[in-house]
Amino acid sequence: MSHCPFAGKNYLFNFNKLSLEDENDDKSQEGINKASKGGLIYGEYLQLNKILNAQELESEKKGKKIHDEHLFIVTHQAYELWFKQILWEMDSVRVIFQNGHVRDERNMLKVITRMNRISLILKLLVEQFSVLETMTALDFFDFRYHLSPASGFQSLQFRLLENKIGVPQSLRVPYNRRHYRDNFKGQDHELLLQSEQEPTLLQLVEAWLERTPGLDAEEFDFWGQFEENVLKGLEEEFALIQAKAESEEKDDLLSEFQKQRDVLLSLFDEKRHEHLLSKGERRLSYKALKGALMIYFYREEPRFQVPFQLLTSLMDLDVLMTKWRYNHVCLVHRMIGSKAGTGGSSGYHYLRSTVRYKVFVDLFNLSTFLVPRHWIPKMNPSIHKFLYTAEYCDSSYFSSDDSD
Amino acid sequence: MSHCPFAGKNYLFNFNKLSLEDENDDKSQEGINKASKGGLIYGEYLQLNKILNAQELESEKKGKKIHDEHLFIVTHQAYELWFKQILWEMDSVRVIFQNGHVRDERNMLKVITRMNRISLILKLLVEQFSVLETMTALDFFDFRYHLSPASGFQSLQFRLLENKIGVPQSLRVPYNRRHYRDNFKGQDHELLLQSEQEPTLLQLVEAWLERTPGLDAEEFDFWGQFEENVLKGLEEEFALIQAKAESEEKDDLLSEFQKQRDVLLSLFDEKRHEHLLSKGERRLSYKALKGALMIYFYREEPRFQVPFQLLTSLMDLDVLMTKWRYNHVCLVHRMIGSKAGTGGSSGYHYLRSTVRYKVFVDLFNLSTFLVPRHWIPKMNPSIHKFLYTAEYCDSSYFSSDDSD
Amino acid sequence: MSHCPFAGKNYLFNFNKLSLEDENDDKSQEGINKASKGGLIYGEYLQLNKILNAQELESEKKGKKIHDEHLFIVTHQAYELWFKQILWEMDSVRVIFQNGHVRDERNMLKVITRMNRISLILKLLVEQFSVLETMTALDFFDFRYHLSPASGFQSLQFRLLENKIGVPQSLRVPYNRRHYRDNFKGQDHELLLQSEQEPTLLQLVEAWLERTPGLDAEEFDFWGQFEENVLKGLEEEFALIQAKAESEEKDDLLSEFQKQRDVLLSLFDEKRHEHLLSKGERRLSYKALKGALMIYFYREEPRFQVPFQLLTSLMDLDVLMTKWRYNHVCLVHRMIGSKAGTGGSSGYHYLRSTVRYKVFVDLFNLSTFLVPRHWIPKMNPSIHKFLYTAEYCDSSYFSSDDSD
Amino acid sequence: MSHCPFAGKNYLFNFNKLSLEDENDDKSQEGINKASKGGLIYGEYLQLNKILNAQELESEKKGKKIHDEHLFIVTHQAYELWFKQILWEMDSVRVIFQNGHVRDERNMLKVITRMNRISLILKLLVEQFSVLETMTALDFFDFRYHLSPASGFQSLQFRLLENKIGVPQSLRVPYNRRHYRDNFKGQDHELLLQSEQEPTLLQLVEAWLERTPGLDAEEFDFWGQFEENVLKGLEEEFALIQAKAESEEKDDLLSEFQKQRDVLLSLFDEKRHEHLLSKGERRLSYKALKGALMIYFYREEPRFQVPFQLLTSLMDLDVLMTKWRYNHVCLVHRMIGSKAGTGGSSGYHYLRSTVRYKVFVDLFNLSTFLVPRHWIPKMNPSIHKFLYTAEYCDSSYFSSDDSD
Repeated sequence: MSHCPFAGKNYLFNFNKLSLEDENDDKSQEGINKASKGGLIYGEYLQLNKILNAQELESEKKGKKIHDEHLFIVTHQAYELWFKQILWEMDSVRVIFQNGHVRDERNMLKVITRMNRISLILKLLVEQFSVLETMTALDFFDFRYHLSPASGFQSLQFRLLENKIGVPQSLRVPYNRRHYRDNFKGQDHELLLQSEQEPTLLQLVEAWLERTPGLDAEEFDFWGQFEENVLKGLEEEFALIQAKAESEEKDDLLSEFQKQRDVLLSLFDEKRHEHLLSKGERRLSYKALKGALMIYFYREEPRFQVPFQLLTSLMDLDVLMTKWRYNHVCLVHRMIGSKAGTGGSSGYHYLRSTVRYKVFVDLFNLSTFLVPRHWIPKMNPSIHKFLYTAEYCDSSYFSSDDSD
Repeated sequence: MSHCPFAGKNYLFNFNKLSLEDENDDKSQEGINKASKGGLIYGEYLQLNKILNAQELESEKKGKKIHDEHLFIVTHQAYELWFKQILWEMDSVRVIFQNGHVRDERNMLKVITRMNRISLILKLLVEQFSVLETMTALDFFDFRYHLSPASGFQSLQFRLLENKIGVPQSLRVPYNRRHYRDNFKGQDHELLLQSEQEPTLLQLVEAWLERTPGLDAEEFDFWGQFEENVLKGLEEEFALIQAKAESEEKDDLLSEFQKQRDVLLSLFDEKRHEHLLSKGERRLSYKALKGALMIYFYREEPRFQVPFQLLTSLMDLDVLMTKWRYNHVCLVHRMIGSKAGTGGSSGYHYLRSTVRYKVFVDLFNLSTFLVPRHWIPKMNPSIHKFLYTAEYCDSSYFSSDDSD
Repeated sequence: MSHCPFAGKNYLFNFNKLSLEDENDDKSQEGINKASKGGLIYGEYLQLNKILNAQELESEKKGKKIHDEHLFIVTHQAYELWFKQILWEMDSVRVIFQNGHVRDERNMLKVITRMNRISLILKLLVEQFSVLETMTALDFFDFRYHLSPASGFQSLQFRLLENKIGVPQSLRVPYNRRHYRDNFKGQDHELLLQSEQEPTLLQLVEAWLERTPGLDAEEFDFWGQFEENVLKGLEEEFALIQAKAESEEKDDLLSEFQKQRDVLLSLFDEKRHEHLLSKGERRLSYKALKGALMIYFYREEPRFQVPFQLLTSLMDLDVLMTKWRYNHVCLVHRMIGSKAGTGGSSGYHYLRSTVRYKVFVDLFNLSTFLVPRHWIPKMNPSIHKFLYTAEYCDSSYFSSDDSD
Repeated sequence: MSHCPFAGKNYLFNFNKLSLEDENDDKSQEGINKASKGGLIYGEYLQLNKILNAQELESEKKGKKIHDEHLFIVTHQAYELWFKQILWEMDSVRVIFQNGHVRDERNMLKVITRMNRISLILKLLVEQFSVLETMTALDFFDFRYHLSPASGFQSLQFRLLENKIGVPQSLRVPYNRRHYRDNFKGQDHELLLQSEQEPTLLQLVEAWLERTPGLDAEEFDFWGQFEENVLKGLEEEFALIQAKAESEEKDDLLSEFQKQRDVLLSLFDEKRHEHLLSKGERRLSYKALKGALMIYFYREEPRFQVPFQLLTSLMDLDVLMTKWRYNHVCLVHRMIGSKAGTGGSSGYHYLRSTVRYKVFVDLFNLSTFLVPRHWIPKMNPSIHKFLYTAEYCDSSYFSSDDSD
């Protein structure tokens, strides 16, 4: 607090209005009278002199104001404003992971609250396209040539966001025949480079998953027990099918069974995992994958409830980034058509990127490895206490820094 | 266009990217190579140096950064950014009406497009509350005392918007024991005063409705014929009821009939209208009311289709402003509770304002005066050509000024 | 109206409640007292005995109720309910076009109102995925094997909708190694066949566009004048570039110019159009394409304002169908992962369909052929009256059938 | 599982399509071939014969089909369908609480997942009004008299929902001069009566809050320590103000301080609480209120993270029910105007109900009693283990019944 806690305290109780409509004429409004004596002003606090004086129409500068350019500017500014907020949340989450603060499980609430906030913002941004869509291609045509060669591709913040989540550089398509990063200069180029070198959300989550309690063989040995159960389960299945009389149905079942067995057994093939990892088809280490599956299976254990919410929110993030890109593609097609006007075939490259840039693919693909509930190893609460008791590393942390 | 049309023309064809994802490596990206030679840069165009450097946390200045204050600032800035866009559209619509340009019916498309855009923005702003709601009362508590006495009440743009739509000054509740306007100073105070003196959207729509073709007695005499039909229709109704045998049902019908007759006849009572007008319970002149009802009844005539859409969009505007206020009230209750914690009774004053500040109430209330379709005077297309032929006042208008 | 108009009339005025909350204890509620004497009951009117007794869980029948199956059923039922409403609107629009009623331009308001309604429903259905997404893959796993082989592919209504809009049969991928239609039987098969044979929305819109007033050479000869202007405009451009001193910039401009000239001139190449049509890359006849471009250019003329809104709403329809499919793909990936769990590459086939099934591609691609405003042929309102005067074919239509 | 686990198992792996678009022609579609041999059919599973044959237009029965009545019916049916789903989730949550299963904290994930699902459905239902709003008052007028006296008031499910959440009977306004329940007959009347007698969500949450670990004096004695800290904190405040030189500011501060002190001290006045409770201004028992405040203050402790999410979701529920009612009021005003057409004053009664029917008001009002973070009693993790270790009552529960 301020070094004059008293003043702060006073306002603490005094401030009770953020309402635009708080127009009761009662005592509670004395704050404003005080405002005339000095204090924070709404417009100054929000720096509206900057925000509301940043709309300069190129068309007007060029001599002929085009009404809709204002919408174009404001919409993009609103996007950038919210991108900044998303980065703010994303960075704070990464710091918590990075400082090992998630070990102190007290921070998990913050983590998922902020991840959910990012999701809500992204939903809003997807919705926001509907506003820009009220501008028709013809309206856009009237000023778009003034904008050349400015391009949304140049949004630094969006590139930073992708990097910080973990879009791999190897997947990025060259833009303008150059490495994507080389289209940015000076400080922006530095920031991008830095964001590539910092640990990504993907990497931080991976390290966290590798620490999932219960994974270690000396503890609960989840993986060992799970493999055992799967092998036994598959054997029983096979026996049941074999016992059937010969028939077309039996053949179908056998062929189905073999396919499914191959899928499940592949899960225990660490070499195959490393191979897929090297090709970029998987992104999480083998140990992290085990951790994720463990959280999936035991999500109802008190200690895994919030971690499970986190895994869900990571998929939400991926899906929403993807939806944002997809809605953007739709808008572009609407605004500028396809080159040469040859029809529906033009959006492929864009579309590819909406799939390619997914980061947490492993979490989606875990659905492939689900098994009947009774194949999942049973835990014994009286023995496996670690799943019920949360860690609490550093009691001094709370008081010293609870601000992020 | 620019006095160097050639350059413009070049870019006209050259610019075809607003995509964040336009990463095909084909020829179409040469624009960026040119960018290195000079030209518009995305970040400069959007003045992101202003937009993204306008978030200064009071809590950080006071020595202890509170994470969520950033969200609080960004959300309010996004609101103000969109308020500016709404004012931009609103002003352009008012100018079209004011210059008599709507007489040139070619401008009606612009008018409804912009009104619909305002609606979509307001829908987004209502949705936007869900983001701020991810901040709990406890998170807000940690920094709210720093903000005193800044208050959302001080949003100049929102007050301007209300004034420009037509919220009457007489209905405004004093704030802080002073006239609402006296809580603003300097240029802001001037702007508010000016917005009160300019013609409001309500007044401009009123004047436009009074010019509805077909109203004048020498033309189609809608009102005269309509009154005649209503009187005749009511008589027939009455006769039908009277012919019934005495019964409880007949009594009910008679009493119902009389109530409804009173309502309908009141429509033709100009004195009563003036009285309601003086009390603020009606807002449109008698002639404008007739025009609105005429557009309602003949909305399918080619010339009235877009005017009917306009009336609908005015109601949308009213409802959405109201929903925005209502969602705001809900948020405030969530953030700061009610004084003294005595429960559900506190939001009344706010709620009242969500009703009181409606502007186009007359359009809603016209539903009260609907009648069976066969009571509506028939038009004869061979005689009443005015309803099928749109006016086109000024052919020079198009070329001289099509920018707004 | 009913043959007992009087009773109807009574209720006409009496009914004023659809509110769930209309609980004022005033006179207005006598209606319900009458309810006890007979009359329509809410639940019976809505046939809630059917609607609310149609949720039978397979998992429960098989002995172990899985909670989330109820959500799965209700969500799909809500989709089908809204699909029915969309078909209802779509059919009514097609009937209006088919009966030549759009010639009577009084019907245009109905047409765009209903098209906009379809858009709003589709937006809701896109949003609706967020509810089903609260079911995790693990929850789904617990009952999904009961559902085999039922599949959303079997939604008859969605296939009908695609057919009625105009998804071409030639583009449909075989399903289950059979023609998509052969996966349906009996009456369903018939309905699909019939929907393929009826005029599609695309075809009806095409015929309507071909009738665009002003297209004919003897009238305004839009196309002839437009081609002339384009040729002249291009020549002037070329001269301006030629006049420049030799430089790298000049070379760039020339190369750019030639590309753009080729695109524009291709527009006047009817043979090329027929070729693209035969390949399915264009879908509208040459004449209809001209009509659409004319509406684009003269959209502010009173008579073209609503037609322009219609073209916009057709693009909305396409985009929203596409977004629905895309969101569906995202959900499926989330629920069942990708086969063999090899990662991000699996969704391609789906994604392709979201592009391929677009119907009104020509309207999007018209953006490619936009030209500077001063290249557009000027109209003379004193000569080209047809653009200001709406047609009114059949004055008897209004009274005889205004119900759809 | 079924007593023929093998068949189930087969389908388990075989079923991997819920997609409407899963049209790849690969092996994975053999399921459908099997469909021809028998198995579940999409349309039969969803009972579409009921769902899609429940739209019978009164206007058509009366001889003149009105197009928009279909929308009216489908929209209301969609509402009822989703109300059923909400009740399904609400009942399952109440059962978990009622059976004491929340004691087994493994159930908390289910509880908040389902509460969040209810929120998402309600958001969709609020959004859904936009579809019905495409019907204008004039369109509604054409068929509304057929509907009399059916009224949305008669929605049994909505009344049940209110009862199950905990809208108190004492607050309900008489409808049609009768007790609200007496407007329903037969089985419906019984169901309402039963829903009033069952424990409400409010009561169940109350009982759960009363069991908040740490409340008891012998454990952590939260309340005792908290009162002590508040008293001490207030004293220090007072001393600081007293030490100031006499001035207008000092007087202001003193008066402010006294007001705030009264508010805070009132929290420890159990008699006052009982009084407010009896007036209906508070709804939770004193002990439950303490529990809620404790969860607020210690929400970051691992064991309180999910409980805190639950409290938030209860406020979401309240706010969304309220928003639903409010949007409904707006729609009604739009459709039928206000009686006598006297303008903006008519919606008051409705509006009052949107406030009055809030259930979890105490949770909102807790914001009134927030205090600086350093006034909150410190916990010692090495002593107060109960906050870190979740209870796990019945290890047999998991296997015996994990279906709800």
